[in-house]
Formats: sequence, structure tokens, C-alpha cells
Amino acid sequence: MSVTHAAGFAAAGVVAGLKSTGKPDVALVRNLGPSTAAAVVFTSNRAKANPILWSQQVITDGIVEAIVLNSGGANCYTGAFGFQTTHATAEAVGAGLGISAGDVLVCSTGLIGVGGQDFRDKLLAGVASAIPALGVGGGHDAALAIMTTDSKPKEAVVEGAGWSIGGMAKGAGMLAPGLATMLVVLTTDAKLDPGDLDSALRHATRVTFDRLDSDGCMSTNDQVSLLASGASGVTPSLEVFTAAVTALCADLAAQLQADAEGASHNISIETINAASEDEAVEVGRSVARNNLFKAAVFGNDPNWGRVLAAIGTTSAQFDPYDVDVTMNGVRVCRSGEPDEPSDAVDLTPRATHVLIDLKVGTATATILTNDLTHDYVHENSAYSS
Amino acid sequence: MSVTHAAGFAAAGVVAGLKSTGKPDVALVRNLGPSTAAAVVFTSNRAKANPILWSQQVITDGIVEAIVLNSGGANCYTGAFGFQTTHATAEAVGAGLGISAGDVLVCSTGLIGVGGQDFRDKLLAGVASAIPALGVGGGHDAALAIMTTDSKPKEAVVEGAGWSIGGMAKGAGMLAPGLATMLVVLTTDAKLDPGDLDSALRHATRVTFDRLDSDGCMSTNDQVSLLASGASGVTPSLEVFTAAVTALCADLAAQLQADAEGASHNISIETINAASEDEAVEVGRSVARNNLFKAAVFGNDPNWGRVLAAIGTTSAQFDPYDVDVTMNGVRVCRSGEPDEPSDAVDLTPRATHVLIDLKVGTATATILTNDLTHDYVHENSAYSS
Repeated sequence: MSVTHAAGFAAAGVVAGLKSTGKPDVALVRNLGPSTAAAVVFTSNRAKANPILWSQQVITDGIVEAIVLNSGGANCYTGAFGFQTTHATAEAVGAGLGISAGDVLVCSTGLIGVGGQDFRDKLLAGVASAIPALGVGGGHDAALAIMTTDSKPKEAVVEGAGWSIGGMAKGAGMLAPGLATMLVVLTTDAKLDPGDLDSALRHATRVTFDRLDSDGCMSTNDQVSLLASGASGVTPSLEVFTAAVTALCADLAAQLQADAEGASHNISIETINAASEDEAVEVGRSVARNNLFKAAVFGNDPNWGRVLAAIGTTSAQFDPYDVDVTMNGVRVCRSGEPDEPSDAVDLTPRATHVLIDLKVGTATATILTNDLTHDYVHENSAYSS
Repeated sequence: MSVTHAAGFAAAGVVAGLKSTGKPDVALVRNLGPSTAAAVVFTSNRAKANPILWSQQVITDGIVEAIVLNSGGANCYTGAFGFQTTHATAEAVGAGLGISAGDVLVCSTGLIGVGGQDFRDKLLAGVASAIPALGVGGGHDAALAIMTTDSKPKEAVVEGAGWSIGGMAKGAGMLAPGLATMLVVLTTDAKLDPGDLDSALRHATRVTFDRLDSDGCMSTNDQVSLLASGASGVTPSLEVFTAAVTALCADLAAQLQADAEGASHNISIETINAASEDEAVEVGRSVARNNLFKAAVFGNDPNWGRVLAAIGTTSAQFDPYDVDVTMNGVRVCRSGEPDEPSDAVDLTPRATHVLIDLKVGTATATILTNDLTHDYVHENSAYSS
């Protein structure tokens, strides 16, 4: 049910012909209120798609009535025409729902450079058919319509005391920090103001989506939106609500990792005893971005030397000759020397755990990534053809 | 002839059994003088192999009598025993040649974590057989003995007026900046002091090997050594000598790129009109490290959106919406909008040129990289098995 699980939301997912496969490609989510508070986190890529430029303006007042999303084209690097298309899309939603276009978030995903006349025509026709299709049971349809190379929709729900949060996500490649490539819509019937929603969402994305680094590539279109209808009439404490949003985002992030393009391993890189959380993240990310290590995991090869070579490139505090590395429970390196035999490491399970003990401080962080596989190369060499 | 092309050098390459294939794996290069001036550039990885730690001490006085190199084991993360092995190797060369062990550089390449008793025994036996094999025609044998996954040896020569420089290199994977993964030995019969050699070598590596970024991974064992015998009696100007060393390094870097593991394209990423050379390098490197772009090139797909998404992650000065991108002569993106059709780009040649016009300043830099292929994944998933 995802985005229509919480009270006060309707959604739809329709076929607009943007995808050559004929599958659903336009989603619409409407906040029925009584509240229309919202918060959004955007990609940190300086090359921002037109929907990002638009949505950044929409969220300035913390009010969102609806969000419209399409797959089948990123509308990025499409010039003034592309921005006008985004604007026209929000106008069409606004006119159809009797709300201000300035309260309509827009998200697009697909190939960069796609956003011409044909894209505009199909997208606007999709909006026209999505509006009458809106329903309180439409969450799953919406989740289907935002899929790109995803093999399955991603949905999750967290229940509070008298309130709940639901969410949907798409993302399969170009997963990287700030954010992973993803479109995420979270909806809650809790009653919170935009400032609290923003605080909760920023904390949640920082420790979940921002630590999912599947392939080191950062998207131009990432957007995570949190809409609150207030329909439950309940205002949870910010602490409780933040924990719930974080749990929901962690669930969706794990689903994104599990469905990353071509991956055969879900790798968790846990760095412990770092001087700071930032340094733990830096160390984990250096390993998550090391193609040699990721190819080795694909081959079920516990090549821990590549872990050490990767963390040697960071500026984190540690003694390179006093580091322990444990893979799937086997400590293969102790204080910079070979320890248990690598042969004892079983990398055949999809879940792979790498534990790096820096022996410096008390901070920890876990980065989620995937292996580098033949299928990853195949999918990404054939994506636009 | 490579390292024995210039007068005053002898070399050898022998089989020590470190490689399971039975191919040559220990190389020795002797400077016969009259000068023994030298300069060395090392990996910037904080995780440095034992031979790096040793050689950093050797070069402090600018004098090198010989350099011994092995493939078949990196002797990195092998603890105190590994360092003792490096020390013993230099001692064996010193005793055999009647020189100080403190004037003997040591290089190792191969798998991290390999450096135990068996490695030591074979390496020392290799040194014992290399010493009597030294000859002024031994350069090619030495170039063969430092190969790992290289498909061919890398050798090059540059002629000066009455002097020359020769060089050999190995490196096929883990190619990345600071330096690429490589062992390189350059020899010259020009007469220069260690300070000038160091100046020339640092300039040359900065604009050649440091801009070869095949797979974004940095090695623990990289070392580029330049030995000068002074046997020609000629002292070229520092400017002329630096240009010659740079040309030689560029030649060897191109050979490394052309033989990178599993690659099917040699990609030159030229960034022009940047605010500074450093920013041009940053922009080029962001593209060179983008797996999605590299996989697209493998598939002969001119996916320029991935170029723009990559440079959007940098801090370089530019307007993301006023950038031109040209691929193999076809300007596919002008001022942030689609220009010539991507279909017009022919990516079937191995040589691929990406031109990024930032329209900000006058600085330029070119980064060399490779595509991301099935063979890259295969070779690096099976490396240690």
C-alpha cells in the first residue's frame, strides 16, 4: 500500500507511453489533508535536473499538495524547453486538482537528455489520465509507475501509536551518496509542521540513503519527499517520529541495495572504532568504491588486501599497520598482518559483511554497497539502446 | 633495450618461481656509473608495502647503485617478517655486487598479503641467480620479469643530444593516480645531480602517470625510479632533460593504458577552458571514475548525460548549464542541451576522445582511462585464485 497506507492520501499510476515497454510510467500522489506540511531532500549533484530546480522552489514554503513523478526520461540537460515542460506538468496537476501549481512537486527519472516535445506530450497526457485514477488504494500502482531498471517495486510501512508512515522508492543504478539515485515518496498521517518534518527527514536520509553507495555514481534527479496529511490528528514526539522515518528509510534503502543493477552480493561495510562518524563513513565509502574489491567479491574471493589498499587512500585517522579486517566472521587481517586463512571465508551468501576495526576511537558507520558483476557492466552498457 | 639502452647500465631478468606460471619474476638493474645519482617517486597510498618503506630510506641521500624488482607477491601487509625480507633482499644484492645495501632500491608487485617464508626463499634465490646474469643487453629480460597481468612488456627510449633515457614499466590493473599501479625504472647516461633528477621526475610523473586513471584504485606498491649513470659525460639543460623524461613517461603511460586489464577502449578525457589545471584534472578524473560512463563506452553508447552527471559532483568552477561535450568529434551537448544526435558518434574505434569545454578559463588537462568491461570484472574476480 505504501504511500496510501497513512490516512489522507490518494495515488495513481498510469501508462503514458514514456517507457518503450508500455509499462506504467506516470505516478501521482495527492495529500488530502487536513495538513499539507512537507519536507524534501534533493541530490547534491550540481548538475540538477529540471524537476529538481522546480521542486526546490516549491518546497520553500513547506507546503505540498501533490507530487507527480515519471519514469522514462530524466528531463535533465534539456534546456529551457525541458524546464517549461516541468512547469507545464505542475500546472496541469494544479488545474486538474484545483490547487496551486506552486504546491506541486515534480520528479523525473530515466535517461539524461530526454525531455523534448514527444516527452512533454506524453507526460501531460499521462497527468490527464492519472488525475481521475487517484484513489486511496492507488499506492501500489504509483510504486509500479516509478520503476526504471528496478526488477520489483519498493514499498514499506512503519506503524506509530495512532499514526503511520508509508513509502515507495525506485532506484537500481547510479546509487551513490547525496543521495543514491532514487525517487522516494514518504507519506504520513501524523501531524507535524514542515520544520520538524525537515529535521526528521534529513536525519533519516543522512544515515540511510546517503550511506547506500552501490556504484559510486551520483544522480542528477534524486529526490526524497515526505508529505504529512495530519489526518490522524496525532503529533508524535520528534524523537519518536524521526526514529520511525529512519526505520522506514532503512527498509527502503535495503530494498534498493537488494535490487541494484546486476548485483549478486549485498555488501555491508562496517567501520568501527573510528575517530569520528565522518571518518568511519569515509573509510567505508573508500572500500565501497573500489572496483577491484567489488569484482573480487563477485568472484567470491576474500581479497582483503584490496580493502586495505582502499582505506589507505583516505585521510581518516588510523595506523595502516594496526588495522583488523574481518570478512563474514573470519578475521583475515590482524594488526596489518595475515591472520586466519582467507580460504575460511565463505562469500557464497548474497549477504556479505566486512568489518574494519581502526582501533582509534569509538565511532562507527556502515556503508551499503554491491559487488561489480558482469551483469552490472551489461545493463549499463545497454541502458539507452 | 629499455633500461640498458643508455650507457652505464646492466640488467637481468630471471625465473625465481614466485609466479606459478614459471615465467621470469625477478629483475635486477645495476648502475655502472661513473655517477650514481637517482630520484624516486612513490605511491601516495598511506598503506605502503615493505619495499616502499625500505626504498624511501634508500633514496634520502640521492644515491642508488642498483634496483631489484620482483613480481609474484607484493610483500605488503606482511608485517615485520615482510620488512625483514625486503631488507635481506637488499643485503643480498649488496653483498653480491660489492655495494652497500643502503644503495639498493627494492620493488615488489603482486598480491597483497604474500610475503612469507616461501616468498623470501624464492626471492633470495632469484637474486643469487640474477647477479651473474647481469649484462648490458639485459634490459628486455628485466622488462619481462616485472610483468604481472600485463600482456606484453612496456619499454621506451628517448634520444637526447649525446645522451639518452630508457625505461621499462609494468602495470595493468589498479591503475590510478598518485601513481597508477606500476613499477617503472628509467635509466639515463646524462650527468645530473639528484636534485635535478628529482625535479624532472616529479614534473614528468605529475602530468603523465598521475593522470592515468584506469580504474580509480590506488596501489600500495607503486614506485617510479630514475637512475643516472653520467656515462655520456653530457649534462643537458634541466628544461630539455625534463621534456625528455616527460615524453618517455607519456610513452610508457600510453602503453600501460593500452594494456589495462580487460579494457576495450582507451579513453582520453580532455577538459579545456577550466579555471585552473587542478580543476581540469578534477573534472577529467570525475568522468574517468564514473562506472556508468565507462560501461556505456564499452557498449559503444555515447551516453553524454553520464559525463555531465559526473562533472556535477566536482567543485570545479563552471556553470552546469553552459558546458559543451564532444565525443569523437561530435558535439553531443552544447550549453547544457542536446546538440548533434548521439547516433552520429562512432565509438567502435579503441581510441575514444571526450572533450569537455567548461568555458570558464584557459587551463586544460587530459586524463587517460579505460572502459569498464566484462573482461575487467572477470580478470579482477579471478586474480588471486
